[in-house]
Amino acid sequence: MTAASRYTYLGPEGTFTEAALRTLPEAATRELVPMISVPAALDAVRSGEAAGALVPIENSVEGGVLATVDELASGQPLMIYREVLLPIAFALLVRPGTAIESIKTVTGHPVAQPQVRDWLKRFLPDAQWESAASNADGARLVQEGRYDAAFAGEFAAAIYGLEPLVTDIHDAHNATTRFVLVGRPARPAARTGADKTSVVLWLRADHPGALLDVLQEYAARGVNLTRIESRPTGKGIGQYCFSVDCEGHVSDRRVGEALMGLRRLCSDVRYLGSYPRADHVEPAVRSGTTDEDFLAAADWLTRCLDGRPDETGRTATDR
Amino acid sequence: MTAASRYTYLGPEGTFTEAALRTLPEAATRELVPMISVPAALDAVRSGEAAGALVPIENSVEGGVLATVDELASGQPLMIYREVLLPIAFALLVRPGTAIESIKTVTGHPVAQPQVRDWLKRFLPDAQWESAASNADGARLVQEGRYDAAFAGEFAAAIYGLEPLVTDIHDAHNATTRFVLVGRPARPAARTGADKTSVVLWLRADHPGALLDVLQEYAARGVNLTRIESRPTGKGIGQYCFSVDCEGHVSDRRVGEALMGLRRLCSDVRYLGSYPRADHVEPAVRSGTTDEDFLAAADWLTRCLDGRPDETGRTATDR
Amino acid sequence: MTAASRYTYLGPEGTFTEAALRTLPEAATRELVPMISVPAALDAVRSGEAAGALVPIENSVEGGVLATVDELASGQPLMIYREVLLPIAFALLVRPGTAIESIKTVTGHPVAQPQVRDWLKRFLPDAQWESAASNADGARLVQEGRYDAAFAGEFAAAIYGLEPLVTDIHDAHNATTRFVLVGRPARPAARTGADKTSVVLWLRADHPGALLDVLQEYAARGVNLTRIESRPTGKGIGQYCFSVDCEGHVSDRRVGEALMGLRRLCSDVRYLGSYPRADHVEPAVRSGTTDEDFLAAADWLTRCLDGRPDETGRTATDR
Amino acid sequence: MTAASRYTYLGPEGTFTEAALRTLPEAATRELVPMISVPAALDAVRSGEAAGALVPIENSVEGGVLATVDELASGQPLMIYREVLLPIAFALLVRPGTAIESIKTVTGHPVAQPQVRDWLKRFLPDAQWESAASNADGARLVQEGRYDAAFAGEFAAAIYGLEPLVTDIHDAHNATTRFVLVGRPARPAARTGADKTSVVLWLRADHPGALLDVLQEYAARGVNLTRIESRPTGKGIGQYCFSVDCEGHVSDRRVGEALMGLRRLCSDVRYLGSYPRADHVEPAVRSGTTDEDFLAAADWLTRCLDGRPDETGRTATDR
Repeated sequence: MTAASRYTYLGPEGTFTEAALRTLPEAATRELVPMISVPAALDAVRSGEAAGALVPIENSVEGGVLATVDELASGQPLMIYREVLLPIAFALLVRPGTAIESIKTVTGHPVAQPQVRDWLKRFLPDAQWESAASNADGARLVQEGRYDAAFAGEFAAAIYGLEPLVTDIHDAHNATTRFVLVGRPARPAARTGADKTSVVLWLRADHPGALLDVLQEYAARGVNLTRIESRPTGKGIGQYCFSVDCEGHVSDRRVGEALMGLRRLCSDVRYLGSYPRADHVEPAVRSGTTDEDFLAAADWLTRCLDGRPDETGRTATDR
Repeated sequence: MTAASRYTYLGPEGTFTEAALRTLPEAATRELVPMISVPAALDAVRSGEAAGALVPIENSVEGGVLATVDELASGQPLMIYREVLLPIAFALLVRPGTAIESIKTVTGHPVAQPQVRDWLKRFLPDAQWESAASNADGARLVQEGRYDAAFAGEFAAAIYGLEPLVTDIHDAHNATTRFVLVGRPARPAARTGADKTSVVLWLRADHPGALLDVLQEYAARGVNLTRIESRPTGKGIGQYCFSVDCEGHVSDRRVGEALMGLRRLCSDVRYLGSYPRADHVEPAVRSGTTDEDFLAAADWLTRCLDGRPDETGRTATDR
Repeated sequence: MTAASRYTYLGPEGTFTEAALRTLPEAATRELVPMISVPAALDAVRSGEAAGALVPIENSVEGGVLATVDELASGQPLMIYREVLLPIAFALLVRPGTAIESIKTVTGHPVAQPQVRDWLKRFLPDAQWESAASNADGARLVQEGRYDAAFAGEFAAAIYGLEPLVTDIHDAHNATTRFVLVGRPARPAARTGADKTSVVLWLRADHPGALLDVLQEYAARGVNLTRIESRPTGKGIGQYCFSVDCEGHVSDRRVGEALMGLRRLCSDVRYLGSYPRADHVEPAVRSGTTDEDFLAAADWLTRCLDGRPDETGRTATDR
Repeated sequence: MTAASRYTYLGPEGTFTEAALRTLPEAATRELVPMISVPAALDAVRSGEAAGALVPIENSVEGGVLATVDELASGQPLMIYREVLLPIAFALLVRPGTAIESIKTVTGHPVAQPQVRDWLKRFLPDAQWESAASNADGARLVQEGRYDAAFAGEFAAAIYGLEPLVTDIHDAHNATTRFVLVGRPARPAARTGADKTSVVLWLRADHPGALLDVLQEYAARGVNLTRIESRPTGKGIGQYCFSVDCEGHVSDRRVGEALMGLRRLCSDVRYLGSYPRADHVEPAVRSGTTDEDFLAAADWLTRCLDGRPDETGRTATDR
């Protein structure tokens, strides 16, 4: 297969990321290549070795996946074309025949640990936790005999010759991870009517209320935010950029005008793409912010400039 | 002369309005026709009998000239093409030979009265005030012998065969009246860089913070207001429209976009024109709100839509 | 009677103001004294010659009654204790026996004129209008034979020996005038739950977005405005103060805190009183802005300062 | 020693956290106990086994230390009493005699890795990185021979019998970590004039512009934010709480009133303390937001309620 049909993902095989990737229809016809880290998965896209990369960006228990958020904010630009939501439940994977009483050591990705902490306290209070590079890697280490059990997706059992001793483990209800399919900059995904738009914003340092003004650019056009995350710029304590997702597509006038406002307001804006919402929820569009409203306002302004401001035939008594 | 070269004004002859009109260079080549009221002066323009009308719109002591504000907000649309500022000082006009001790009755326009009240208390405490239809009309009534003295512009003395007994009377320092030259809707006056833009706004009745949102549309683009006046819509106590002047010209991008925002936000907007400021004060344009900033943002949005968001050659390390 | 039981009002006898005053229960036991002007009515209160004065402040057709708005904003402080709403309909008063065909001249207060303009155009298109000092004064001038007919309240007919030729004349539906009962500063009227609070605000001149900030002080506490009027300060074009009415009573925490915010924000604030709404409409109080919410927040802050921030017994899982 | 004189910290010995703790004067007279994790260090405080815990909360390269941010937002309440800023520079620690050419494997805390990534690419491009539980733990693993070199603070060398082969390694200039000294809830640290105040905010879910309103509560009182971080509430994608630091002390009126506003606005607020800024920077206090301004406004409101609104002796002409 060629680079054009290759997708990388945060590996190794058997991770939740792979499971998320396999929910995409086109995954069936792509070469899926596990990579050892988010930067590695994304750099393969940057260098042209892969057409896309699927990486986790946000977890409902642990929050932003910082490697992904930071990689998208810096380095050679990339864009998001799809998002995938995957409910997260862990299985406790053991070598065949292992009894729960004999488990002394458990492993898993550091992100998994807070999601199974309560379960561990209750069912394996004396087991020792050690972190692995990934959930799948934890499974491999169990296979190799380094640990007694690993928390991973149930689908990882077969890959590593393990068996799921307990399944559907998750401290929080509705634990979900959000993944994004990232590619090189190109035309955004087509508008579906239920879309999100992502940007990274660098505020003007000399402006105390800058974040308030940023939120105002969205709010004034009735555009709701779905995620906002502050990240350090690396230039010292108190210096942040903001990674922001909002409802709507860049080709929606209200979103496009908000983005232009941000571009004027901020010292820099990086557009990360517009893409279909995985949950298909269409936004409630506030009165006065539909595309038709924006076009009518633009038409009216043109008439003002031409000296025909009231040509719609409305009369004062309509008011 | 034809209607095209005729200007009406709030008469009669000898008013401050006439004095203001005569400060316009083109007044020398126009037929200047006094009218008995602001509506009459404006209706002559609406009907095509005159090309323009000069009417007072605001006084630094008395506030908005409501007849003008309301006429511009209702009826057949008109537009403002010029503004004139005239410092207001009154002369006390009497029939030749009248001594100040013999003055028992004084007259003048009701708007004049609060501007000379302190002077009257001090120098003519026992004189009786009666209002006249205009300052000039007061002068005429003195000429006819109905009153002993009239407050009017010094320039009115000659017209009515009177003499100015006292000049430069004004309780308030810097008392100024602002006049506007009004015509039928056409292309706005050319942008000079020191302009004003006037609108009338009808808020959506069902929206409590609507006025806040209106001000935000201006503020978000760094557009300062120079006047805001609430006027009843005639539909009951608590129902207002707002007459608003701001800095800048409709062809300034920041003003144009603010107007479009208002058009989407309000139930109706009436554009009253953009015209040179009489004081020639250029606005302080906030960073991010120049025409160049708006164009750069629009270019960037186009690149986002085309999939070339970062083509400016900036690198992440610039941030 | 003594000054303590004397109320002045904008006279002469037979004005709408008198009619409004007579709707107050206590009017029956007061000496009601007509005065020739709003300032005169208010100065009688200031000097102690009267306990109160009823004056018009706002008209649904003509807007603010500027003499009242300006008098309350300047000079020795006064406070508002009551408001009265009076539907306005005019009668055409004539000397007994006058036929409508014989009416050549009509009179009335200048504020009446725009409220009967359409009626005049239709039924008396050739009649000459001249303004009178008040509607009642117009009636007197008809009595004296100076004019043929006067627009005034029907109740004025008897006083001046006239007869109402036509009644219930009003161009606008729901034309209403709002009057206020003004006294010397004292404790505000008791809270009823359906109240208004009035202030005059002088913005800091050096602060472009000052009006936005003022509105924000109200909005942040869920306090709706019912009237906002800009008035010149007399210091030059573009220098305004704002006369503002809001829902609620100064003893409502949300109103009190908004007023304190305004006091800190503005260069000056004049408190004009809190008083029952004439329409008895109770405000919709937004979640988080009841008195209980303010008290709970103050209790919590005290606990924070004392080092007991979470003493309410809530646990993290409630969140 | 007793629990009252015991401080825990994120161990093991030789971490930057220990170095930061030792910059506190009182550390000299406390028993300093290393703990294996942030939750362990904090739980020792919660249970009363220690009086305080020093933990990292923010890094200028990596951002928020999520374990700390999340621990402070949930579970039994704790409060912050001090902050410490520590410039971060790494030393490459090796067993005595190791040459740089022979280094095949390096280790360190995952947070260290992005801070030395560029250095590694340049000077040890072929070395294999594996993460350790802490920088100090990495040093221990080098001592035990498991890895060839560890990135850690230079001060860790002596503890583990290693030598610093290279010092002052840091990809970013000004890399700094911020630590907080945490204790059980009690009176906040005394106001110094250069303070910070920390809270965790849970927004009302049903309110789209809630974050905007939150920022407005600070901005309206001239209170600047120094950090804002969104964290998932664990209830699903898109459900966040916000960890916010601002300038000023809870006993500053402007901060106290902002906190009360937040308490009314948010579904919950957790107060995390007020404490001296490590950088001693005093805030620029905006006109109208000093303690004196708040007290003057409260006095004035009391006078309004008492009917003496203008007792300061100011006259209208002062305005």
